[in-house]
Amino acid sequence: HISKLPNVETTIFSIMSGLAKQHNAINLSQGFPDFGSDQKLNDLVSKAMNEGYNQYAPMAGNLELRDAISKKIELLYNTSYHPENEITVTAGATQAIFTIINAFVKPNDEVIIFKPAYDSYQPAIELNGGKAIAVQLKAPDFKVDWNDVKQKINNRTKMIIINTPHNPSGTVFSKEDMLQLESLTKNTNIIVLSDEVYEHMVYDGGTHQSACLFPDLKSRSFVVASFCKTFHNTGWRIGYCCAPKELMELFMQVHQFNVFCIHHPTQKGIADYMQEPKHYLELSEFYQRKRDLFLSLIKGSRFKFKPSKGTYFQVLDYSDITNEYDVDYAKRLTKESGIASIPLSVFNTNNLDNKVLRFCFAKKDDTLKKAAEILTHI
Amino acid sequence: HISKLPNVETTIFSIMSGLAKQHNAINLSQGFPDFGSDQKLNDLVSKAMNEGYNQYAPMAGNLELRDAISKKIELLYNTSYHPENEITVTAGATQAIFTIINAFVKPNDEVIIFKPAYDSYQPAIELNGGKAIAVQLKAPDFKVDWNDVKQKINNRTKMIIINTPHNPSGTVFSKEDMLQLESLTKNTNIIVLSDEVYEHMVYDGGTHQSACLFPDLKSRSFVVASFCKTFHNTGWRIGYCCAPKELMELFMQVHQFNVFCIHHPTQKGIADYMQEPKHYLELSEFYQRKRDLFLSLIKGSRFKFKPSKGTYFQVLDYSDITNEYDVDYAKRLTKESGIASIPLSVFNTNNLDNKVLRFCFAKKDDTLKKAAEILTHI
Ligand SMILES: CSCCC(=O)C(=O)O
Ligand SMILES: CSCCC(=O)C(=O)O
Repeated sequence: HISKLPNVETTIFSIMSGLAKQHNAINLSQGFPDFGSDQKLNDLVSKAMNEGYNQYAPMAGNLELRDAISKKIELLYNTSYHPENEITVTAGATQAIFTIINAFVKPNDEVIIFKPAYDSYQPAIELNGGKAIAVQLKAPDFKVDWNDVKQKINNRTKMIIINTPHNPSGTVFSKEDMLQLESLTKNTNIIVLSDEVYEHMVYDGGTHQSACLFPDLKSRSFVVASFCKTFHNTGWRIGYCCAPKELMELFMQVHQFNVFCIHHPTQKGIADYMQEPKHYLELSEFYQRKRDLFLSLIKGSRFKFKPSKGTYFQVLDYSDITNEYDVDYAKRLTKESGIASIPLSVFNTNNLDNKVLRFCFAKKDDTLKKAAEILTHI
Repeated sequence: HISKLPNVETTIFSIMSGLAKQHNAINLSQGFPDFGSDQKLNDLVSKAMNEGYNQYAPMAGNLELRDAISKKIELLYNTSYHPENEITVTAGATQAIFTIINAFVKPNDEVIIFKPAYDSYQPAIELNGGKAIAVQLKAPDFKVDWNDVKQKINNRTKMIIINTPHNPSGTVFSKEDMLQLESLTKNTNIIVLSDEVYEHMVYDGGTHQSACLFPDLKSRSFVVASFCKTFHNTGWRIGYCCAPKELMELFMQVHQFNVFCIHHPTQKGIADYMQEPKHYLELSEFYQRKRDLFLSLIKGSRFKFKPSKGTYFQVLDYSDITNEYDVDYAKRLTKESGIASIPLSVFNTNNLDNKVLRFCFAKKDDTLKKAAEILTHI
């Protein structure tokens, strides 16, 4: 067989968004807003185009943008990455994650991931001949059993991938979680890939615990972030990653031959837009209001839930409604009730099914109201 | 060692452009225009942003753009690729090339490439544990010895990468070359990667011989193309590839987890812009005029040359001037004479040095005049 990835199917996000379109359903599946990006930001990108930012950017990214990222990190996490060689702008967080795995994972290397896991991690690991070692987070709390992690670490462990705030569960790692991770990786050669694309969406007064806040952890970590999630432009494919320069150098060796650099006018536009920190500082408040609206509206439904602590996703437990396999139920909800969601089992090993669906609340209030209207009548 | 690519250095393009900047030299090294893109195209991208094309595009690309690509191919090559599943929009041709190699090349697979070769091919092959098998094209004609290719094909040959019009040499494959390739690969499982990013820049009445013109060849080929080269926006990172659907399916398995999709407003803007075929049909004429201007101005210099037949590059032989190693000479020209070029040896096995430098003529007439002024006084 000529395929290197014989078991890979089309990503669930395309499947459910496709089904939503086909049945004209409200699409709360794939994570993207149904409202526009800030006109001011669009205008800054247009301005950059008209001013001629249209040829190759430096491989690591437009320097003004790298400066802006560096300043943001200092402001939020009181730590620093050097714009010259510790920050790289990427074609979305997905490309950063793919390239990190590509740059480090060799045949027979083990990579610890937490299930349910974002669906790009495992194929990227396996494409490089590596082995994904799953630590299962259990519904409804999705807490990490660090003893389990400890037992799975051995001398083949090349990398640990964490994701906080966590997609799809909506949980967030605590400071204690991060300290556990730091102590388990101390004095090892393990690389930590910390997927923090929802860093600006943490609710109820919680705080995001970035890997860069913990010095020993920072020294072995790639921190991955997204502008698409933060600025409501998932179709702009722009994010970044940060790492100590020795690690970033190895990342660049692959990055330069994968995409070389990123859409230049968008980089310049975002650099200008970031001069006002409120554009990212006010995001948690913005999305907490949407979460609260959505949850208040479905309170009377037969779905059970704990409020999402971060990300723009809410998981709902449907076990009081039906015993169906979650993929089947998600498809039926789309076709029959006109509302699309993401079944969690596709992110679990052996499709472990906890009877939970993920709903994206990055939607207009009106969309959330219509969705709640459907959900309360099920 | 934790690096998977211990021998990879920073790409020559970044090195020479960096040196040009540092010494305030005329930069004819990295291939990009020093003039702007069409204001009409910029406006179409801005319009797409303002109309809300800002969320994820389909993985394979905006459907209007895939339709436009399909129509262009019918118009130019009188053959068809189905927009639904045989065309994918990519983050530049570079990402298409990287992903094709990623999707197919396994440890110990052999991939035949023609040297001098674009510098991303070999690292991408080696990252996947494959082996690059070089066929050397010899200055000054850079013709393929198909007997040499034939002898290098064996049952480990997974892929052959061709590039026509050829960067860096400026030669183009003839119909006879393509027929040779077709006959050598017939009844094999070899995949052909045909890098055709300069398809719209062929001079002196020559015609571009796309792999898609030859039915058996087409059935095993990925044809890779670039909007960045064609529309003067190298910083927009957008290109595409075409292949029969069985091959494209395997490509998509990797593509979806690498970049997922491409900058959406740019896709929509280009789709609209392509409704007028003259935007790509008039390119050969446009660049032939620049080539002719440049060559007429340096006729009296000590550099020897044959006019470039395609691409926006001209190679100049400096063997009458000095015997220096081409990398050293290219650096000295930048520092002392204020003109940056690309030494060809970096694209050859064992840095074979034919005393030729590559100059990019995708520049304003004024820039070409200033460059010629320098070159004629050397
Ligand atoms: C690349 S499509 C997936 C979007 C996303 O991040 C999600 O829905 O979880
Ligand atoms: C990605 S930088 C290289 C640009 C280019 O195609 C060239 O100069 O050959």
